[in-house]
This record gives sequence, C-alpha cells and structure tokens, in this order.
Amino acid sequence: MDDVTVTLKKSASIIKDEIDASLSNIIPQDLKNASIYLTNAGGKMLRPGLTLLTCQLVGGSESDAVKSGVAIELIHTFSLIHDDIMDDDEVRRGQPAVHVKWDEPLAILSGDILFSKAFEIALSLKESNPNVSSDAVLETLNTIADSCIKICEGQALDMSFEGNFEVCEDDYLDMIFKKTGALIAAATKIGAIAGGADLNDISTLYEYGKLIGLAFQIHDDYLDLTSDEESLGKPIGSDIAEGKMTLIVVNALEKANDEDKQTILKILKEENNSLEQIDQVMNLFNKYGSIEYASNIAQTYVNDAKKILSNFEDSYAKETLLKLADYVIGRST
Amino acid sequence: MDDVTVTLKKSASIIKDEIDASLSNIIPQDLKNASIYLTNAGGKMLRPGLTLLTCQLVGGSESDAVKSGVAIELIHTFSLIHDDIMDDDEVRRGQPAVHVKWDEPLAILSGDILFSKAFEIALSLKESNPNVSSDAVLETLNTIADSCIKICEGQALDMSFEGNFEVCEDDYLDMIFKKTGALIAAATKIGAIAGGADLNDISTLYEYGKLIGLAFQIHDDYLDLTSDEESLGKPIGSDIAEGKMTLIVVNALEKANDEDKQTILKILKEENNSLEQIDQVMNLFNKYGSIEYASNIAQTYVNDAKKILSNFEDSYAKETLLKLADYVIGRST
Repeated sequence: MDDVTVTLKKSASIIKDEIDASLSNIIPQDLKNASIYLTNAGGKMLRPGLTLLTCQLVGGSESDAVKSGVAIELIHTFSLIHDDIMDDDEVRRGQPAVHVKWDEPLAILSGDILFSKAFEIALSLKESNPNVSSDAVLETLNTIADSCIKICEGQALDMSFEGNFEVCEDDYLDMIFKKTGALIAAATKIGAIAGGADLNDISTLYEYGKLIGLAFQIHDDYLDLTSDEESLGKPIGSDIAEGKMTLIVVNALEKANDEDKQTILKILKEENNSLEQIDQVMNLFNKYGSIEYASNIAQTYVNDAKKILSNFEDSYAKETLLKLADYVIGRST
Repeated sequence: MDDVTVTLKKSASIIKDEIDASLSNIIPQDLKNASIYLTNAGGKMLRPGLTLLTCQLVGGSESDAVKSGVAIELIHTFSLIHDDIMDDDEVRRGQPAVHVKWDEPLAILSGDILFSKAFEIALSLKESNPNVSSDAVLETLNTIADSCIKICEGQALDMSFEGNFEVCEDDYLDMIFKKTGALIAAATKIGAIAGGADLNDISTLYEYGKLIGLAFQIHDDYLDLTSDEESLGKPIGSDIAEGKMTLIVVNALEKANDEDKQTILKILKEENNSLEQIDQVMNLFNKYGSIEYASNIAQTYVNDAKKILSNFEDSYAKETLLKLADYVIGRST
C-alpha cells in the first residue's frame, strides 16, 4: 500500500469508531441500522482524512479535528443516500443502496438524521479540542452549512443538465464545484480551523480543497472512459450510455464540426446504445482531443493545489497532502 | 379575529419577508420555487410566533429573535415536505404537496436545502441581535440540531407503529413528543435564548413549549373525531379509516374488554371502512371514555404550561402565551 492509502486507512479507522459511537443511540433500531449502513460498507473516507491532515499541517494534532472530520463524513453519507434515491441508483459501495435495502421513507429519514447528527457533532468540537474558540466552532458550522447549500444546488443543477447539451464549460465547472468540490473544500477548511490556523491559511486551504475536489470529479468522468470494467465496477462508457454531461462531452460538443456534433448528440440522447455506438463517440472524443483536454484541466488543478501548499513548512502532513493531490487523479477506482 | 390570531399574523408577516429574502438567491430557479412554495401557501407560523413571544417575555425585542424564528419555520417546512413524501400525502395547506407539484427528487432536495438554510440563518443570529454571545448562538444551534434528530426519530417511530396496536401510552407520548413537541419546545427555548434569558428561564420555556406541543398533537387526533368535515378539510374519522395510532386508540385498547378490543382492531386493520364501522369504533371510544380521556390529558398539559408562566412578570407577551396555550386545544382546524 502507498503512503496515501495507509494514512487514509488510519484516519478512516478513527473516524469510523467515532461515527459508530455517535450513531449508537438512534432509535428505533431500523433507523439506526439504515443510518450506519453505508459507513460499515466501506469507503475511502477521503474527506475526513483531508480534515485531519490540514489540521496537522497548520500545527494541530489529529485528535483536534476528529469531530470536524466526522461531521464532514456524515454530510457526505447523507448526500450519497439522498442522491441514490434521486438518481435511482441501486448499488452503492458494492452493496444495495439504502433505499433498496430498506425503503425510500427510511432512506430519506436516515439521510435527514445523519445531516442533523453532523451538526450536533460539529457543535461538540470543544469536547475533543478545548483550545478551539466558540467563534471557531461557529465558523466550522458556517462552512458546513454553506457546503450543504451548494451540494443541494449542485445536485439540482446536475439534474437540470440532463438532456440539456447546451451547457457551457463554466456552467459545468460551477455545477461540479457545488456538487463535489464544495464539500472537499469544506473538509480542508474546517481541518485548518480546528488546528487554529489564521484566516489566510484557512482560506488557502479551502482553495486547495476546491482544486483537488474539481480534479477529483473530472477524473471520475475520465475514468469512465479509460479504466477497465473490473476496476470501475461498471461498464466502460456508462456515462455515454446514460447521456451524462461531463467536461469531456462539453468540450467535444464545443469543438466538433456539425456532422460529428450531431452524431455525438444522437448517441447521447438514445437509450440502449450498442457497444459500436459507444466506441464511435469515444473515437470522436479522441478526434477532438477532449479526453486529453479534461485530463489536462484536472492536472492543472492538481498542480495549482500543490503550489498552494508550498507556503507551509515541511511536515508529514504536507508531504501526504501533496501526494493526495496526485492521488485524486492517479486512482483507478 | 382574536388576539392570538392577530399576534400570529403580525409575526408571520415579519418571518415570511425574512424567509423570502433568505431563499431568494437559491439556484436553479426550480429549486428556489419548490423551496419557497409551502411558505407562500400559508400556514399559521405558530412556531416562529412562539419564538418571538418567548424572546419578548424574557425582556428581548421582537427583532432579536427573527433569525431564530426563521430557522425554526424552515426546519418545520423541511419536515413537512419530507413527511409528505414518506406518508404519500398529496395535499398540504390546501395545495398539491411539493413532490406532487414538482417531483420526488426536487422535493427531497428542497427539504434538504431548507434544512441547510435553517442552520445558515441561525448562524447569522448576531446580525439582527448584536447583544447575543457566540455561546448563545451555539446553544441555539444545539437546540435546533437536537430537535431535528428527535423529529427524524419521531417520524421513524410513527411509521413503525403502523399496524402495531401493542403500543403503550408512554411509547405513544414519547413518539409525539419527538415528532411534534420537540420542535415547538425548541421554538420557545431559542426565543428565550435570543432574549438573553438565564438558564433557568430557558429550560422553563422549553418545558412550556413541550407541554403545548404535546397538547397540540393530542388535540389534532381529537379533532379528527369531533370536528366537522368542512373545518377539517377531510372526512371525520379519517384516522380510524387509516388505522392510525392515536392516544384515543391506545387508551381504548387498554380499557376495552376482549370482544370490544377485537372489534376495534378488526376495523382499524381493515381497509375501506364503511361509515357504519367508523361509527361503531367511535361508539366504543365513547363507551370507554377514551375521547374524553385524551381531551383531559391535553387540558392537563395546557394547565401545566400556563402554570409555568406564572413565574414571569405580566406583559403582553405573557398574556398572549397564556392565550396561546388555550388556543392549541381550542382551535377547530
């Protein structure tokens, strides 16, 4: 295992224990089980890992940011549960989604209670971190609430983009910032707050999180076309088959000549595409360099994120955050 | 119009303006429209009305608690939107429910964003109330988060009671406290916090809210059997037809002889009850004094709530809160 994976595994174990403890008193039993289910199903816990690392980067200890990390992971889990209902996705982390394993009402409720618990836990930040001021706790909550608003807006924008192939690059990037980037940026920001960073470092680390969050989402779309079915857990080109808007699609539609544009649009809009059709679109993406274009944008974000870290003193946390920036566009799943 | 109605109308207008302003920047348009819809559809705004009144009771001004009141109303609205999806209720405030007017995904999201906005607005409490301390803001948020957790648990308990006629009175009262009482108690408590009350008054006013919240819910069940179809907007005895657990049912099942118990259970469990069957159950409720029993319990809660207020100095706010306690069990809709 590489360093990043080892570090994430270590922090995931701390966060998981804390989540278990904080959800253990939910009643009735069904709601408790549905709420804890996705945490037990695994997951990289990238976001709380980032929270613990940025806290250490600015001179705090890992334990100072545990409550903040738990809050972020619970918000992430809540959004996965509700998104899976909205998007009708039946599998999550290799297991039936919460609304499939139980039912929609309990899935809605378990998302809602995780949301509530996230705020309750963030409010208890002083318990694990007596040095933190009340204002720092308020700023932590503000950051979380702001990211939640953005997540909702991002998901609504994403749904509104379905079947709308007029979306421009800026609108697309704004959508993925809200849907994915904002929570990762919140994760790195509240770690810095828990570690006692000054305002400048806090906003720098928000920017770091935003950049790797954007790169993370663009890489997700890139993997859909370049990975293999076994690593990905779904067929290559699923996004094309589902007619999903990605940076690659946006770019290809902007560059393509009329004939190629019509071909891409026809296949994206069609249901039940053949493998030949998916290949045809992939070839057009390659013809216009759109896969490479997206990959380059993700790489630029990662480079910028790493540059941001150069202002901080060398430490194990800094080294890991540098590697994590590469990791978000290096991973194959 | 009576004093209580006049006071609630006045505070509702202040709260509604503030809600409009705080939701006006939501994007995309669809999500904004779905989020603001129920607020525009009317509603008594009892909860924020209570928040403004308890703030004034302890010496604060109405404007000190506006942000707190808005937060509570948004939490209430979020829970209505999600409950309507879960309970498959198609009408709310005389209009199509959000998931009917739009669709389920947008209804889930609009609930989620109202939830997030509630926390954002509560976090901005100092903007309208510069005297409030950071710790008081934290305590406000803690109170709101706690009530949200209870609302989720209450709804899950309510759903788990469906078809379970073994529920005892204590379990039933615990469920309605969580589902309805906790948010009303939070409303009165955070008003007191915004008004600068001491810890003793804050907890006293939580208790006042809890008591009238319980009375409010029991009166709802009472109205289902004693009101008229026009005032209620649904047929009398709907709860019997739906086999819903109420304090009246719990009490009748505890007191009834075996034969009567079997009759009640049979009709509650059956779908598509005839009017004769509903009358038969009503007669059995009357035979065992269960309607009166529930009404007496609600009256006791109201008396206790009013007694609690005797420790406060006379004021318009106190007078209105006394009347409000009577109002929750005097209303016909």
